[in-house]
Amino acid sequence: MSDTAPLHQLEFRLSYADTDPAGILYYAAWFPWMERLQSEWFWMNGLRQDQLAAEHGFWSVTCHTECDYLVPVGLFDHIRAELRVGRVGRRSFDMLHHLVRTEDQRLVGRGLIRVVTVTPSGESTPIPDLLRRHLDAWVQGHPLPADVSP
Amino acid sequence: MSDTAPLHQLEFRLSYADTDPAGILYYAAWFPWMERLQSEWFWMNGLRQDQLAAEHGFWSVTCHTECDYLVPVGLFDHIRAELRVGRVGRRSFDMLHHLVRTEDQRLVGRGLIRVVTVTPSGESTPIPDLLRRHLDAWVQGHPLPADVSP
Amino acid sequence: MSDTAPLHQLEFRLSYADTDPAGILYYAAWFPWMERLQSEWFWMNGLRQDQLAAEHGFWSVTCHTECDYLVPVGLFDHIRAELRVGRVGRRSFDMLHHLVRTEDQRLVGRGLIRVVTVTPSGESTPIPDLLRRHLDAWVQGHPLPADVSP
Amino acid sequence: MSDTAPLHQLEFRLSYADTDPAGILYYAAWFPWMERLQSEWFWMNGLRQDQLAAEHGFWSVTCHTECDYLVPVGLFDHIRAELRVGRVGRRSFDMLHHLVRTEDQRLVGRGLIRVVTVTPSGESTPIPDLLRRHLDAWVQGHPLPADVSP
Repeated sequence: MSDTAPLHQLEFRLSYADTDPAGILYYAAWFPWMERLQSEWFWMNGLRQDQLAAEHGFWSVTCHTECDYLVPVGLFDHIRAELRVGRVGRRSFDMLHHLVRTEDQRLVGRGLIRVVTVTPSGESTPIPDLLRRHLDAWVQGHPLPADVSP
Repeated sequence: MSDTAPLHQLEFRLSYADTDPAGILYYAAWFPWMERLQSEWFWMNGLRQDQLAAEHGFWSVTCHTECDYLVPVGLFDHIRAELRVGRVGRRSFDMLHHLVRTEDQRLVGRGLIRVVTVTPSGESTPIPDLLRRHLDAWVQGHPLPADVSP
Repeated sequence: MSDTAPLHQLEFRLSYADTDPAGILYYAAWFPWMERLQSEWFWMNGLRQDQLAAEHGFWSVTCHTECDYLVPVGLFDHIRAELRVGRVGRRSFDMLHHLVRTEDQRLVGRGLIRVVTVTPSGESTPIPDLLRRHLDAWVQGHPLPADVSP
Repeated sequence: MSDTAPLHQLEFRLSYADTDPAGILYYAAWFPWMERLQSEWFWMNGLRQDQLAAEHGFWSVTCHTECDYLVPVGLFDHIRAELRVGRVGRRSFDMLHHLVRTEDQRLVGRGLIRVVTVTPSGESTPIPDLLRRHLDAWVQGHPLPADVSP
């Protein structure tokens, strides 16, 4: 997956907010960065999470997440977070996150957010067509133009 | 103010999440603890922030906050956050937060959250009677029974 | 695993800090709570992470974490986080975290933190005896007295 | 102060991490953004906080912070944080933070971080020459070249 172009990316420098008394990344710090990257991508594609239920009759929630810490990083390291789509199933899909230290282009962390589609009342539902068209396009590396989104 | 009994309190131990590579408290870490203490207090008094607008026709928002860092604290220090009410004005009021290191009962930090009451559409409005009755009772150190709250 | 007694636990009420505009738990919010619980447990057992390298010649770092979101929880829900030990390998071990809503005792989230032992310079090293004695005792549900820790 | 050019700035889009069930900015969310901006500025000027004590015999700590919330902002609003220097005293100085919504260039929040210089053992000390030269240059809007920093 890492050799395909990312769908979206975000750069930032690790600061005191992201690190802890061990002098390295606080393990929970990657998660908000992954969320920022992924939420912005959905928003850029007309899939504004907080309006999906009202506008499209479905919603999505995170059902699983995980992260591997591959290389220690610390204060003031500059990071590029890259977003790709992973496995797309019938009722859920995975968004893949690579954390790359820009100084040496090393993959320092790797995360996954599994999202399940649900009805407005919260029951699991097959991925609706609107979202599936986007996911298929992302898998092929050709995002739909944003104005195609209803 | 510090010699009156607190309205409410919360104890916790500083962990990696609260501290930074300097080995001491991350300056922003007090704010979520102050919010937890204050939100729970309002909730305990029947003033659930997320239902005020619908149930009582007003809402409240934070318009100012501040914090003094008096004594350095670090990893695994045990803290008691104490809540008191401060100045009560016509359209806003201050909630006062004391952060006390329990080991030696020293006041290590001091915060303030200024809250302004607003209409559901967001304009400043005088503090409504329902809330003023609570604030007056808090100033006098005699919170209303929760079941008195409508 | 969930039917054994937890090694340690922590109770808290979800507040604005833990929740997001969807009105439910922010997915990253469980991780700092899990860290608090686990860090305090190691600290209670004389295994203060920030002093391991200096005192015992090894250190430990998180190499993997994951979390399952089983039941939606929201503002003001009261949670009990429970800590257990999971798989203990030659060079790494898993700490298991259960998030239980106290109102109905439902398991609402489940997390895992995989820790690898490293030399002070950061290379993977077999779990040292000091730590292994603790882990073995935790697996058997009989933590060593804290004063046994050197 | 707001009509002088900022010393440094940082742009970001508010995400779920920054907002809460009220649908607006979580009040504590500005503080880590202010810290990121300010820490990067000191780092860019050769004043790496975590090395000041070892290299220059002094250190600095935050002794006070405050923030005004001027205009409600919410999910996906795009923000520019601007850094300026404020009052410079004998033993402390203020860094000023403006939060501007880029869409309409409105000042939506305003923060201040007061920093006091201390000896390595933590006692207040007059601002050392090295730092004062930088502060004077910042007040005049002409930062010293980074390579001038020892």
